[in-house]
Amino acid sequence: MENQVQRGIRWDAAGAYWINGEKKLLCCGEFHYFRVPRQDWERRLLLWKKAGGNCIATYVPWELHEPQEGSFAFSDCPARDLEGFLQLCRRLDLFVLVRPGPYQYSEMKYSGLPEWLVTEYPQILARNPEGEIVNEISVSYLHPVFLEKARRWYEAVIPILARYTVDHDGPIAMVQFDNELMGIHYWFTDAYDCNRQAMGIGEPGGAWPSFLRERYDTIGSLNAAYESGYGSFEEVFPIHPPARCATQSRRLKDYQDFYFSAAARYAQILCGWLRELGMQVPIVHNSPNPNANSTFLEIRDALGEGFLLGSDHYYNLNIGWEQNNPTPQYALRCFYSNEMLRLMGYPPTVFELPGGSPSEFPPIAPGDLKAAYYANTALGMKGHNYYIFTGGENPFHLGSNGRYYDFCAPVSAAGEVRPSYEIIREYHAFLHENEWLAGAGMEADFYVGLDWESTRSSFYSASGVSRAKAWELTRNGILLTAFGTSYSPQLVELSGELPTDKPLMLAVFSGMERSLQEKLVAFLKAGGKLVLAPTLPQTDETGAPCTVLADFLGSKIPTNDRRYAPVLMMDAMQDIPCSKSRVYTVEEAPLGARTIGWDEKNGGVFCWEKAFPGGGKAVFLGLDWEYCKLEHGEILTGLLSRCGKPAASRCISTSNPSVWAVLRRDGEKAMAFVLNLYSAPNETDVTITVGANTRTFSGLKLQPMEVLCLPVTLADQDA
Amino acid sequence: MENQVQRGIRWDAAGAYWINGEKKLLCCGEFHYFRVPRQDWERRLLLWKKAGGNCIATYVPWELHEPQEGSFAFSDCPARDLEGFLQLCRRLDLFVLVRPGPYQYSEMKYSGLPEWLVTEYPQILARNPEGEIVNEISVSYLHPVFLEKARRWYEAVIPILARYTVDHDGPIAMVQFDNELMGIHYWFTDAYDCNRQAMGIGEPGGAWPSFLRERYDTIGSLNAAYESGYGSFEEVFPIHPPARCATQSRRLKDYQDFYFSAAARYAQILCGWLRELGMQVPIVHNSPNPNANSTFLEIRDALGEGFLLGSDHYYNLNIGWEQNNPTPQYALRCFYSNEMLRLMGYPPTVFELPGGSPSEFPPIAPGDLKAAYYANTALGMKGHNYYIFTGGENPFHLGSNGRYYDFCAPVSAAGEVRPSYEIIREYHAFLHENEWLAGAGMEADFYVGLDWESTRSSFYSASGVSRAKAWELTRNGILLTAFGTSYSPQLVELSGELPTDKPLMLAVFSGMERSLQEKLVAFLKAGGKLVLAPTLPQTDETGAPCTVLADFLGSKIPTNDRRYAPVLMMDAMQDIPCSKSRVYTVEEAPLGARTIGWDEKNGGVFCWEKAFPGGGKAVFLGLDWEYCKLEHGEILTGLLSRCGKPAASRCISTSNPSVWAVLRRDGEKAMAFVLNLYSAPNETDVTITVGANTRTFSGLKLQPMEVLCLPVTLADQDA
Repeated sequence: MENQVQRGIRWDAAGAYWINGEKKLLCCGEFHYFRVPRQDWERRLLLWKKAGGNCIATYVPWELHEPQEGSFAFSDCPARDLEGFLQLCRRLDLFVLVRPGPYQYSEMKYSGLPEWLVTEYPQILARNPEGEIVNEISVSYLHPVFLEKARRWYEAVIPILARYTVDHDGPIAMVQFDNELMGIHYWFTDAYDCNRQAMGIGEPGGAWPSFLRERYDTIGSLNAAYESGYGSFEEVFPIHPPARCATQSRRLKDYQDFYFSAAARYAQILCGWLRELGMQVPIVHNSPNPNANSTFLEIRDALGEGFLLGSDHYYNLNIGWEQNNPTPQYALRCFYSNEMLRLMGYPPTVFELPGGSPSEFPPIAPGDLKAAYYANTALGMKGHNYYIFTGGENPFHLGSNGRYYDFCAPVSAAGEVRPSYEIIREYHAFLHENEWLAGAGMEADFYVGLDWESTRSSFYSASGVSRAKAWELTRNGILLTAFGTSYSPQLVELSGELPTDKPLMLAVFSGMERSLQEKLVAFLKAGGKLVLAPTLPQTDETGAPCTVLADFLGSKIPTNDRRYAPVLMMDAMQDIPCSKSRVYTVEEAPLGARTIGWDEKNGGVFCWEKAFPGGGKAVFLGLDWEYCKLEHGEILTGLLSRCGKPAASRCISTSNPSVWAVLRRDGEKAMAFVLNLYSAPNETDVTITVGANTRTFSGLKLQPMEVLCLPVTLADQDA
Repeated sequence: MENQVQRGIRWDAAGAYWINGEKKLLCCGEFHYFRVPRQDWERRLLLWKKAGGNCIATYVPWELHEPQEGSFAFSDCPARDLEGFLQLCRRLDLFVLVRPGPYQYSEMKYSGLPEWLVTEYPQILARNPEGEIVNEISVSYLHPVFLEKARRWYEAVIPILARYTVDHDGPIAMVQFDNELMGIHYWFTDAYDCNRQAMGIGEPGGAWPSFLRERYDTIGSLNAAYESGYGSFEEVFPIHPPARCATQSRRLKDYQDFYFSAAARYAQILCGWLRELGMQVPIVHNSPNPNANSTFLEIRDALGEGFLLGSDHYYNLNIGWEQNNPTPQYALRCFYSNEMLRLMGYPPTVFELPGGSPSEFPPIAPGDLKAAYYANTALGMKGHNYYIFTGGENPFHLGSNGRYYDFCAPVSAAGEVRPSYEIIREYHAFLHENEWLAGAGMEADFYVGLDWESTRSSFYSASGVSRAKAWELTRNGILLTAFGTSYSPQLVELSGELPTDKPLMLAVFSGMERSLQEKLVAFLKAGGKLVLAPTLPQTDETGAPCTVLADFLGSKIPTNDRRYAPVLMMDAMQDIPCSKSRVYTVEEAPLGARTIGWDEKNGGVFCWEKAFPGGGKAVFLGLDWEYCKLEHGEILTGLLSRCGKPAASRCISTSNPSVWAVLRRDGEKAMAFVLNLYSAPNETDVTITVGANTRTFSGLKLQPMEVLCLPVTLADQDA
């Protein structure tokens, strides 16, 4: 077989991995040759194969292999025997994903950078707007000195790796540049990196003033936008968030856009070096977390074909995290992360799926890990890498978190097999029995509009119904309510084509591009069913008046009157719960519209529906809510019913709102995933509808942190 | 019996409740007469009695009883039949805690204030430093118009309540003024309340300039402290946090102290009215949460005898909370909250112990509630009030969170008994079988110093080893490590006498009062064993050089060198984990001290011990850690062993660090509480040592969220 198809790991535009020419799920595990004792490499790699893995991942730490500047060491000791390790992986027929930095983090001193680099060249460190160093380990990616040193590291290491890629019959199937890009900046300052030299701030012809010149053309138009009086682009300096007004919001967004473009430039440079130095395998990268995925849009565009972005999905790394165990809120993050990656054109991949935790407190329980794994599969994950499968002693005192890098992993630092090993083995057995999941999608009842920019707008967001608020409503209102009501959502890009086969629900922000407003109007004219909350756009994104959508709907712009606590009535419901008084009303519903919900106090209308010729329908809901009450589910049910999606038509539903369920399907095969992500047991009925066929599983009992997988056979579907 | 002893609820200085003359636990449940349908009052009150309750609590909402200004309504409809309700409670022999406001919150519109008040008198609303209204429901407590209206409300309602107090053979045993005082300010602004009229800001002779005059005497000395150039105290305006330097820190602390004194003045006014209008029962109040307890110190001092402060201990109210279920982190908060209340001289009382949640998502499971209840008892709670026991329909559309106020309570809004009812009934049965717990204390292995001011210093904290950092180290370092290592801690006030019978561990801040430094020196001279981390004081609280403690120890002031990642060695351990490089070293240990831990990289010493004549010993640990690794437990064990508390001497210990255990004892009776506050099961051995006797329970299996209660009989103790 291997002779007939291309060895290696590829993916298709539909979001499936192809491994050695077969559609498969990617099962990878982090395995650090420099930590695991060399004499135990083979035994542990075989343990990994026995657990069902088909790939391993490893950092190749710069600080390990260039201990003094210019002195490279690749085979002087077992911990540095990179080639020996790669040869062993090939012999054992395991693919390898290499992560040669420059950064690796990985709880190593200086996050994997050589000590000499950050101590002898402090000018490369990232800075805040005041010019102060933000962290002793955060560099400025485009600083020429950093790039010069990083280039030398790549020149030393990449040619070695290139000899071991699959196209040279080696094990290396993918390469990752850097690690969790941009995290080192926003974790340690509120203002990204403002290193003046690297960013060209204040410099004639520097990158930042050039960026502004490209955006504004003349300093006059910048001054008009900023309400400022600058004499030149070189005088403009970055500011700290938060934005206290619209002009500050604009300034902050400009710097964010510039910063993202700088990160993309850095990614391009590294990837250029990888190719130039001989790496011909796919290039990957890991977004630090679900909320960072969309900060990689510029990088996706810059790198194009042959690049794949994944994301890291931890649920707890220390007491600074929100939860000790995976929860529905974690599952929500996994859902939209996987959806974002799918929409970017990638098989959703979790490059760091917890294999444990760097912390022994809070402890990571095998059952919690299991729930996290199945939840990720339920919600779209097509490839994963346990961080970590096994560790060992940090060589040369290079660990920042203790002598041993154990990570409470399935195979301990000392090499003992832990209970979580069996979890992984069983999970892989399940995946390999159901390899068709590699091509499966999640069945959906309705679409939820994804505005990419909204998902990364919190940095510059100002008050009012901002993009950031719209994204918050999407997550904590629409999506949580949907999962709590068993209405399966699917994200669609607002920048793409809008399908009209299912209702589309959308969190609206006040400053919406004219083109998007026009697209929504066209959607309604084409027969689309549109649910809008909590307001209607009144300007375009520059703040210029633009009410294309409201005009088409015939509606005034809804407003929020915070003086009076409303008394909301709707259908058969009284006193609709809406925390924080986030209610938007118009004095009366548009001409031709039917009022659905009103404020008993002042007669204002917060919910109405209106039909259009051609079958289109708009439903407006003036609520900016956070899911907390079952009534929110009743509201959603009511609105989607008005759009042709009554509760009885849901593809999968539970009788217990605490239990979430999703249905994945690939042609004839389907599987229901039923999730109880709580510390308490739960019981539920589950009803599945495929086409005209309905099947109910009654009285399912779920233990704390249990995910049930129910195969739905064709016979069931036909029954 | 009732004739021989005083009917009612009292408490003693040792922190025990006395109910009708007997030492008892207070079991109270929130029961809103205005929500529960009148025809169902009796049935539900009897359900409460059957569940083992001895008291109920209810708000008496201002907005309900004064719907228009000056129009009071107390009996025109069932929802307002306050007296009928009180008469029924007396007939059923239930004590009542009344909470007549002004505020009640309770998910009512305007937080329980009349709509006319906040809409017609906007001048009473709280303001930020810019003079902007912070929230439509947050008033300025001392605004004369607010006080005038509140006084009229009290004049209307208090005489009614006073007729029903225990001294008039009525049911009312306690009265609460207002609700979760100060929460309405810090929840909605970062700068407390700066209403200029109410606070007298900028006014000649106003409260704020008068406060400053009292503190600084002359404007010159204020200018010296603030590095400012004000011409008069009236020119000084409050600023926003955070403090970016020491002078801003001082300014912010001044305003915080002033604000707390204003809140105390408000409390005094309300309590004066209560007494004046006839209420002779004890007055209570509920701190909004464990972290707010110490903001009530001025109030405690102002109200003196006859006043009791409790705290509210929720673990989840909506998705904005950290966890869906109670966790060890929650238990930690309960521990220090109860300890603070005990040290204030009160029986630790949780006036809002979750009976459910206002949110249906995240759901509250009966098993989670049970774990929360037993954890609170384990950690010192002597009285509690379920918020809520039962609810009903919000009258007159007054609810802000839906038509029904159900709260997922043990008895639903509609009156149905839920599974959590049985949890409460069983819990009370346990408490009544073990009423001796009313007088029990927690057995302790060592003391942890509590600096009150540190616990409320985050508002004004500046960088460096601030008081806020010291409190963080106390919580997340010392206490979490102690519980994870089964070293039972007990808080002692640094402002009080320091007992020398056990080691005292203390998180040190850089600016420590001379008197406290002297007290610590005296403690060492008196034979005390003192563990200090992570630094030593170098100034007093005003910033003036003061190294009394370091001088006595013979130590230089430890410093933090962030340039180099340290390599920490200690005893048999290498590469001590210390996240965030928070390590403080001296070049060499003091003369006569023994080095315990050092930085392999630069030779700096971060841990040493030194003995003093008279048996005193000081151990210094230059780590500012957050508990995450078992090595932290090894370090703590090592240090306490050096102070005469080896692991074998722990009063109770578990073999599984995920399982916490505490031992409560009252003379001859003792009980071990073993806590598994995770979504996963756990197994552990528990060893208990009382005096010379040791008893081990082997292989205890705990389900997710299970708290085991193991009676330790005298026979066991003698065994």
